Amino acid sequence: MTSAEHPPHVDPSFVVLRETVQPDDVGIVRDIVVSTGFFTAVEVEVAIELVQEHLARGTRSGYCFLFAELERRTVAYACYGPIACTVGSFDLYWLVVQQALRHRGLGRYLVQAAEARIAQAGGRRVYIETSGRALYQPTQAFYERCGYAPEAVLHDFYAPGDPKIVYSKALAAGAL
Amino acid sequence: MTSAEHPPHVDPSFVVLRETVQPDDVGIVRDIVVSTGFFTAVEVEVAIELVQEHLARGTRSGYCFLFAELERRTVAYACYGPIACTVGSFDLYWLVVQQALRHRGLGRYLVQAAEARIAQAGGRRVYIETSGRALYQPTQAFYERCGYAPEAVLHDFYAPGDPKIVYSKALAAGAL
Repeated sequence: MTSAEHPPHVDPSFVVLRETVQPDDVGIVRDIVVSTGFFTAVEVEVAIELVQEHLARGTRSGYCFLFAELERRTVAYACYGPIACTVGSFDLYWLVVQQALRHRGLGRYLVQAAEARIAQAGGRRVYIETSGRALYQPTQAFYERCGYAPEAVLHDFYAPGDPKIVYSKALAAGAL
Repeated sequence: MTSAEHPPHVDPSFVVLRETVQPDDVGIVRDIVVSTGFFTAVEVEVAIELVQEHLARGTRSGYCFLFAELERRTVAYACYGPIACTVGSFDLYWLVVQQALRHRGLGRYLVQAAEARIAQAGGRRVYIETSGRALYQPTQAFYERCGYAPEAVLHDFYAPGDPKIVYSKALAAGAL
């Protein structure tokens, strides 16, 4: 995308990152996810359930959150967590930016911030699962720009004709 | 294995399958999993947590159980469930047989019984994830005998040098 198509990137110094999860994040996450027009009703419910799981069980839920606030409004979030029974493998489950603020660098900033926290927590590798459908080509290109490589394809995973691509990235501890 | 090494297979007509999960299954699952000497303490905890999740939330937990009883004793179990945000994909999370009763056909019987229930619930594909380490070669061979094919390998997934193999099997609705 060129600057003619989108406003310039948000200056990271204006972005406040927040890790604590609050009860009103249930509605905030719903609004952000719905705003994209990208996710099905079931997917929206799953996104919300992960917030509720964290509210109920804290980090024992396995779901960590990173919210990006601009002018005290939460406009994007990442949800990630350690993969059970692994040494240092993490999943990045969700990364969503409020529709009106997409293409401003917030997603990339959140990915980098999540990776830094994962590395601090002893993470070695980050996995991202996404659909291989054409609808997801911008998603796939975004993760590849962030340094993720497709490591596996599971055919007919999401539905017949809808494969899952597993992206991974090895974190270099010294690089963060 | 030949019959010289192991007693003959258990007659399936002696096996009672049970799907309801009861509070004492927490201890039963712990005993079965520990008996194998195969799983780490963390893995045992995860196995137990899935039972507790089912007791707390029922099928909404996403974890279904199938227990095999012999002479009113629970001697093996399978844990499986639908994969969120997919149409008809299921994970077979755990399949464990009491150590003293291994190599008697109970594992295979449980896999087939779980597949039948998955197909009845609209399942199309079953996934099994296991380690690519040498320790797991009997596990890998067992799933291949059950008709599962390795579809993807994620290097360094469980730990450096310990890859994850993703096995899958397409269920033929008419065949069950």
